Amino acid sequence: MLIQIDFSSEEAIYQQLCNQIILGIATSQFTEGQALPSVRQLADDIGINMHTVNKAYTVLKQEGFVKVDRRRGAVISVDVDRIRAQKSIDKELRILLAEAICRNLTRQDIHAMVDRIYDDYGEVNER
Amino acid sequence: MLIQIDFSSEEAIYQQLCNQIILGIATSQFTEGQALPSVRQLADDIGINMHTVNKAYTVLKQEGFVKVDRRRGAVISVDVDRIRAQKSIDKELRILLAEAICRNLTRQDIHAMVDRIYDDYGEVNER
Repeated sequence: MLIQIDFSSEEAIYQQLCNQIILGIATSQFTEGQALPSVRQLADDIGINMHTVNKAYTVLKQEGFVKVDRRRGAVISVDVDRIRAQKSIDKELRILLAEAICRNLTRQDIHAMVDRIYDDYGEVNER
Repeated sequence: MLIQIDFSSEEAIYQQLCNQIILGIATSQFTEGQALPSVRQLADDIGINMHTVNKAYTVLKQEGFVKVDRRRGAVISVDVDRIRAQKSIDKELRILLAEAICRNLTRQDIHAMVDRIYDDYGEVNER
């Protein structure tokens, strides 16, 4: 698959990379179980930092598009439930955090609150 | 002020400590600008870990009851706006995170989402 990065875009490169890979999945250029290029290879191919590729793969994993296999590295693995859950929570969280920012709560404040709430809930679902 | 910790309680000790200090403020046993005992001293007095006292002071600071002064350590400093903001956001966040947990999103997932959303918002209010 051809990954096109617009270096003059305001959109972060890792985000463009994520979008291109998700587009690739949607258009069947990437298929379930297919291994993505290694971080180093993709970074070299596009001419970007390995850290940027790594960030994109981490986000894709977190969003439910990719799994990391010890032998094969990042592998396309679409988890529809996870994608739906992420989208739904992300949307609500954006509204809540806009309010939090208006009220002068910092990202550190929110991280501390999230930790305390997860502690209170007993981390039943912690993996 | 007499701080009473119930070691047989299910409530975390740092939380009990926070509550006792907030109660102390509410009942004017602690007044604005008054220095709290040092972490070491309070830990020794109550017979708990210094880490626990430190956690309580950090939470009280984060919630807007205490400021940390370089010379005097933790000092009572009530920031009503901050307390209100925290309460409001905490309440909404608890509901949202209950939903997130039901959808198998971990604390790490939420931290990552919070970071990305703050990044997107441009951290205008980052301190």
